[in-house]
Amino acid sequence: MTTTRAWAALAVGKDLQAYEFDMGVLGSEEAEVAVEHCGICHSDLSMLNNDWGMTTYPFVPGHEAVGRVVALGEHAKGLKIGQRVGVGWNATSCAHCVPCLTGNQHLCSHIQPTIVGRHGAFAERVRVHWAWAIPLPDALDTAAAGPLLCGGITVFAPLLNYNIKPTHRVGVVGIGGLGHMAIKFLNAWGCEVTAFTSNPSKHEEARALGAHHVVSSRDSAAMKAIAGSLDMILYTVNVQLDWNALMATLAPQGRLHVVGAVLEPIPVSAMRLIGNEQNISGSPVGSRGAIDAMLNFAARHQINPQVEHFKMSRVNEAMAHLREGKARYRVVLDADFA
Amino acid sequence: MTTTRAWAALAVGKDLQAYEFDMGVLGSEEAEVAVEHCGICHSDLSMLNNDWGMTTYPFVPGHEAVGRVVALGEHAKGLKIGQRVGVGWNATSCAHCVPCLTGNQHLCSHIQPTIVGRHGAFAERVRVHWAWAIPLPDALDTAAAGPLLCGGITVFAPLLNYNIKPTHRVGVVGIGGLGHMAIKFLNAWGCEVTAFTSNPSKHEEARALGAHHVVSSRDSAAMKAIAGSLDMILYTVNVQLDWNALMATLAPQGRLHVVGAVLEPIPVSAMRLIGNEQNISGSPVGSRGAIDAMLNFAARHQINPQVEHFKMSRVNEAMAHLREGKARYRVVLDADFA
Repeated sequence: MTTTRAWAALAVGKDLQAYEFDMGVLGSEEAEVAVEHCGICHSDLSMLNNDWGMTTYPFVPGHEAVGRVVALGEHAKGLKIGQRVGVGWNATSCAHCVPCLTGNQHLCSHIQPTIVGRHGAFAERVRVHWAWAIPLPDALDTAAAGPLLCGGITVFAPLLNYNIKPTHRVGVVGIGGLGHMAIKFLNAWGCEVTAFTSNPSKHEEARALGAHHVVSSRDSAAMKAIAGSLDMILYTVNVQLDWNALMATLAPQGRLHVVGAVLEPIPVSAMRLIGNEQNISGSPVGSRGAIDAMLNFAARHQINPQVEHFKMSRVNEAMAHLREGKARYRVVLDADFA
Repeated sequence: MTTTRAWAALAVGKDLQAYEFDMGVLGSEEAEVAVEHCGICHSDLSMLNNDWGMTTYPFVPGHEAVGRVVALGEHAKGLKIGQRVGVGWNATSCAHCVPCLTGNQHLCSHIQPTIVGRHGAFAERVRVHWAWAIPLPDALDTAAAGPLLCGGITVFAPLLNYNIKPTHRVGVVGIGGLGHMAIKFLNAWGCEVTAFTSNPSKHEEARALGAHHVVSSRDSAAMKAIAGSLDMILYTVNVQLDWNALMATLAPQGRLHVVGAVLEPIPVSAMRLIGNEQNISGSPVGSRGAIDAMLNFAARHQINPQVEHFKMSRVNEAMAHLREGKARYRVVLDADFA
């Protein structure tokens, strides 16, 4: 029997509290990771509140972890005890469905996210299939890299998937946990980057992160001035904006790509899509190959998420900080189990 | 002064009537085409009714013409007097905007469709910029090729633009003027083709056109049986179906591509797009390069639109035939100006 300590909510709406549970026998293809740091993602909040109707309690959040491999099942591949790895949104995929076999493991028909029906990484230890314990390049900072594993890959994968080129003009809606990483990636990718934010206090920050232009989506004159100019918009927030005004900033053949969990239907004008040969799409995190590519790109360009640290024992305070929109731009918990 | 005879509506809601007008001086980059045949497209009906608010009267419909070049402006390129050409939705593009310079002339910022602010091809003669008087391969049938120039390219261009492969499974919604050509193209392209139609009388016809499967979109069991299987759906009708049921038939990374002029907003679930990494897109006709590629493909595979012929002097009867949903599958008018 292997017990581990964690922070768990015992029911919907409850604060997280110290919690100890039996991890059972390590699966033959699993890796066990001793967590050193774990980012907090908006989806941890959504799952805590059971916003998506799929939370099981006791609920241990956490899916942006960095730590060391401390145990390996007998069929775990490519890892060594003591190796530094990251754990992100996904914990295990089946390896034999079409998406898995074609390198799109994140779209696996039997995907198991790290915090859905499993205990996450606000814990001493977390277990995942070996393929999802992802070795980190040496140049990445252990204390800051966690948010790359979920927020980072979410905004990086579209650059790979949709063949974004350094000559493209790309907009980023929302300068938060995801958006700030998107700006850094896009700047390093060589693109012309426009940040959309209605928060004036973030204008200078967006420029400092690498945006070449900052536009308030509520400023209709500014929106009109960039009409028809953007090749892609990365929509990183989970609330609705004025979709028509936003779509009007797209160039012919442009793409509105949504990664924010907008729950209400988006009213899409077929006539606009047709007339301008445009696209609307979405994506979740990324494949194992995309994550590796991102980690190497981030290491080579020294792209780190901009983070604020809280001791893991202050997790409720940290969650409140995020909930209140105060995070600049990602909160990372430092494990402090005594 | 050059006059030509045509069929025109003098006001919204009026029948077409014999009409003669002065074409003025031939533009230096224009080609004048003596019309032999002209298909009728749903957009001729929409424009006749001013459904899109951009019709000018007298209105001469017609933008699926086949005929012979009878006059060329002094700077017209690549054409000879007497040459057989087709004329489609677009009549002129500027040649110097970004879309034009990158081979996407159909997305030109100053595009002029053949029947918007110009007189179309239900006429003895029609004039277009030389680049839009498109030489037809010898193997194509003069009397049937017209519908390729608008309906055909509308469903063919997405196969090029979205990298459709012969291993892909593609659905076609609506077995009409556009859909029947889509099925023929997709079959020749090597794809596994599923036709969606709620009209039982079209099931056998869809198979004869080249569909491997036929599904009624109103049959929820049949829809469920193909859940998650299609790489692309070509949506060729202009009315709303059950979008959620349709999206559920798409495979991960699949695409719903709309070419039917659906006027009401499509309620798109961001969560579905995100979870399955899917796309919704639209497109109008195609570039000059895409049209040439389609014409060569159609000639090589002997793909002809399935047409019914009416004398052009019976144009009102022909329009009614189309309006009443009786066309199998495209109506072509044969010019009979005495």
